[in-house]
Amino acid sequence: KGGLCGKTGVSLVVVLVSVSLMTIPSVHGGKVLVFPVDGSHWVNMNLIIQSLHARGHEVTVVRTATSWYIKENAPHYRSITVSLPEAINIEEQDFFVTFLVKMLTIEREGGSLFSFVKFYWEMLGSLSKIHQQASFLGIKMFENKTLMQSIRDTRFDVVLIDPGLPVGVLVAHELKLPTVFNVRWITSGEGHFVVAPCPTSYVPASRNAMSDKMNFGQRVKNMLYYLLNTCIDKFIVCPHYDRLVDRYFGPDVNFYHLLQGADIWLMRMDFVFEFPRPTMPNIAYIGGFQCKPSEPLSSELEEFVQSSGEHGFILMSLGTLVQGLPLEITSEIAAAFAQIPQKVIWRHAGERPNNLGNNTLLVKWMPQNDLLGHPKIKAFVAHGGTNGIYESIYHGVPIIGIPLLFDQFENILRLEVRGAAKVVQATELTRHNFLEAIEAVLHNPSYRNNMKRLSALHRDKPVPPLEMALYWIEFVMRHKGASHLRTESYRMQWYCYYSVDVICFLIAVLMTLTAIVVGSIKFLCFRLCRKRKPKQE
Amino acid sequence: KGGLCGKTGVSLVVVLVSVSLMTIPSVHGGKVLVFPVDGSHWVNMNLIIQSLHARGHEVTVVRTATSWYIKENAPHYRSITVSLPEAINIEEQDFFVTFLVKMLTIEREGGSLFSFVKFYWEMLGSLSKIHQQASFLGIKMFENKTLMQSIRDTRFDVVLIDPGLPVGVLVAHELKLPTVFNVRWITSGEGHFVVAPCPTSYVPASRNAMSDKMNFGQRVKNMLYYLLNTCIDKFIVCPHYDRLVDRYFGPDVNFYHLLQGADIWLMRMDFVFEFPRPTMPNIAYIGGFQCKPSEPLSSELEEFVQSSGEHGFILMSLGTLVQGLPLEITSEIAAAFAQIPQKVIWRHAGERPNNLGNNTLLVKWMPQNDLLGHPKIKAFVAHGGTNGIYESIYHGVPIIGIPLLFDQFENILRLEVRGAAKVVQATELTRHNFLEAIEAVLHNPSYRNNMKRLSALHRDKPVPPLEMALYWIEFVMRHKGASHLRTESYRMQWYCYYSVDVICFLIAVLMTLTAIVVGSIKFLCFRLCRKRKPKQE
Repeated sequence: KGGLCGKTGVSLVVVLVSVSLMTIPSVHGGKVLVFPVDGSHWVNMNLIIQSLHARGHEVTVVRTATSWYIKENAPHYRSITVSLPEAINIEEQDFFVTFLVKMLTIEREGGSLFSFVKFYWEMLGSLSKIHQQASFLGIKMFENKTLMQSIRDTRFDVVLIDPGLPVGVLVAHELKLPTVFNVRWITSGEGHFVVAPCPTSYVPASRNAMSDKMNFGQRVKNMLYYLLNTCIDKFIVCPHYDRLVDRYFGPDVNFYHLLQGADIWLMRMDFVFEFPRPTMPNIAYIGGFQCKPSEPLSSELEEFVQSSGEHGFILMSLGTLVQGLPLEITSEIAAAFAQIPQKVIWRHAGERPNNLGNNTLLVKWMPQNDLLGHPKIKAFVAHGGTNGIYESIYHGVPIIGIPLLFDQFENILRLEVRGAAKVVQATELTRHNFLEAIEAVLHNPSYRNNMKRLSALHRDKPVPPLEMALYWIEFVMRHKGASHLRTESYRMQWYCYYSVDVICFLIAVLMTLTAIVVGSIKFLCFRLCRKRKPKQE
Repeated sequence: KGGLCGKTGVSLVVVLVSVSLMTIPSVHGGKVLVFPVDGSHWVNMNLIIQSLHARGHEVTVVRTATSWYIKENAPHYRSITVSLPEAINIEEQDFFVTFLVKMLTIEREGGSLFSFVKFYWEMLGSLSKIHQQASFLGIKMFENKTLMQSIRDTRFDVVLIDPGLPVGVLVAHELKLPTVFNVRWITSGEGHFVVAPCPTSYVPASRNAMSDKMNFGQRVKNMLYYLLNTCIDKFIVCPHYDRLVDRYFGPDVNFYHLLQGADIWLMRMDFVFEFPRPTMPNIAYIGGFQCKPSEPLSSELEEFVQSSGEHGFILMSLGTLVQGLPLEITSEIAAAFAQIPQKVIWRHAGERPNNLGNNTLLVKWMPQNDLLGHPKIKAFVAHGGTNGIYESIYHGVPIIGIPLLFDQFENILRLEVRGAAKVVQATELTRHNFLEAIEAVLHNPSYRNNMKRLSALHRDKPVPPLEMALYWIEFVMRHKGASHLRTESYRMQWYCYYSVDVICFLIAVLMTLTAIVVGSIKFLCFRLCRKRKPKQE
């Protein structure tokens, strides 16, 4: 846990000491109700729950009966399990794999415009179905009076929500409890878009893999993406929750305002990775809070890694959601790997490519953080999910990115812009371009140096991000919210918010004044001319 | 230094423990060049300088020869003294007193519109003169090649600037050094207005004492204030610095961009006091960093205070800049004080009112923080400078505000909106309304309770604000800047920034498409009609 810092100038002597900068009032025995999202999101949330438990809080997690990652009860939490009707339920893991394979097939085969539109239409249908499922969870809870009463009786202090599926917001409103969001995604995309100003001129819209420096064409595209996201939000996602709000809270309550009214937004972001952009006083950045120093490897793994000698090794993993790529892609990857002197550890659950080199070890699971922190690691082949990216930044390991879904394209782009990653599109991946990418990252020291610089910046924080998350959750418990940090400007009409009415009024006044002045001058001229004319006559 | 927190719920057991949350990499032996602003601003800056010195940094302060508060050399800094020509030099203290008395006289006598306009015109003249003086400091430095070379040879690590008078920004640019701002005011008003989005619909413009909830008329007024501030900035303040930029850096450099390009903005603000509003990743809030627990009073003062018995005492101070009000106002104040059972300690340097009550002690100086932290204090009569306000918030003492100059009107309003202060305008002050205000604050517990609540929120921070300030200054030293936290969107043309070009383009496309569709329909109708007509004929 030693202090960390970047390179220091000639005149600076850096002393690594632990200084207690903080006098934090600890809160014991708080009660936290959690609405998580399954999959990789749960990995994050679970870590916070474990830490809350360790600090003496009681945690209750709401899950569906068919939840994939979120287990029923655990030493560090108790759970409320809600059974959804068969028709509503989605098996998430299969769902995403099917989805990905479909997309890759279309793109690699150079699908027609029609096939793309059809695909995106289906995607929107799936998005709608996921939110329908979440909203159904809400209905099942609201309809179960015994459950709601028992929740009320528990007297929770705060509701901790991953607003990727924001049904917990409605339950918190019903219980009149303050909310803390552990957020990366929200209905209309990246979390900031709901709560902070997002000028489309330099803030790339979600799903639009673009940097913060855009030319005119890119800014037009960005605006269109922004409008598209807003429409998806308004017509596909929100209606599911609006229905619940209408049903249980009546017409005076607005779902979007409930969403915007969260007390604290713990954003799983960090500005070594995210482009700098406007933020709000009630946003705390906890990107990389899951990162920690690596621990020793098992003896077999350590032996394999050491056998790489001076060449070191490469790690490959495509995350928790997608455990397999189509064989036609994996065999290209295997062929490229077979040509390098480095050893490779590849987390792969699909069919084994038969052209796998001797240097490549396929594993079903691996201690990713311990491998990323190993001194012999040279590069990380990743899909670009945020968990893996932050671990890679933390340990300063450059990335070869194969983005597959969602935000992964934007994530990898952010590192590419900073010279810390190289991208290979899965749809265009061949053994040649993949090998080129690996060799570039291995042999051009700038990738590693840039990642080391990001790592130094990322680690240099007044308070470690996990502590920061716990601090704000407890702050909300201590003060029953944090409304002094939250603007309620979102309750204004859009034309008031953007001062459209004021600008129109001022322009009207200016035009009236101009008209009066011009009119008076004209009138005077006219009178003067008339007076002269009789004289002339 | 014990932990502090607000009221806690029934189910929470609060344990006050010191927890080390932070592993901070300490930097010793850094070199800091400081450009302070005189007066109360210096009180703040000096505190940071003392702390930097205590952490082993060498500090060099740039001052003018006639500086009022900033002494030549000190145990904790060395100074660079620049002599300005007689004609440029302003004796700040006299200047502000003259200014205030003039304003109060006009307002109390119900001056004509002409006298107001004349007064504000003179005020703008003085503002211009202050900035001219600051820019002259820059010229004197740039022209002194020996001085500049010796500064260069010192190899400073960072330039710490109070951008109220932003000449240090030019010197930092010349030296190619990163900058940290210790800021409340900047050329166009409150610091945020230069660097963060400020929707005029809910962010009150500087010099406009308004809350964040505005009706249509107030929003119009706010927009006008915003435009006025922008004009003052553009035509009165910036030209002085633009001339320097032109002269020393050529036409490619823009003064305003240099200003906006600061690495870190340490804002002397806190959201228990400031209205919540958009912020930026490179802004750190250090409002109240000067606050500290009170120490025991001198025996005479303690005796006086204890003699107040159960009634307690009231403190009155109008800050460092203005040490005296006109006698006609002070005698009203004295008359009101004479009627209350509380004791009064009044810091007053002007003429002694002859109707002073026995309960009132006039002092030239007082240990304000120790008095504010005394258990017997009941209220604080203050002008509303930020230093006094933060000390009052820190100790939870409600305020009776007599705002006089600058931001004091806005400051007091912010506390009034939160129910922690009552305002009496100096121009309308009589013994009756002043007594009423005092009695309201003394006898209505809501003022004290609201201030206690603000105090609890203010003190509950992950890192104390002074530590935060030092952290970021050292961060900039360690990493030679903090550009990853700074957007450079300010370099965009305004119409790009606000997407005016994109919106116009999209509207044009939409209109063209509509025209084509409508045109085609018309054309078709026309053709159909023509075809039918011959048949009819």
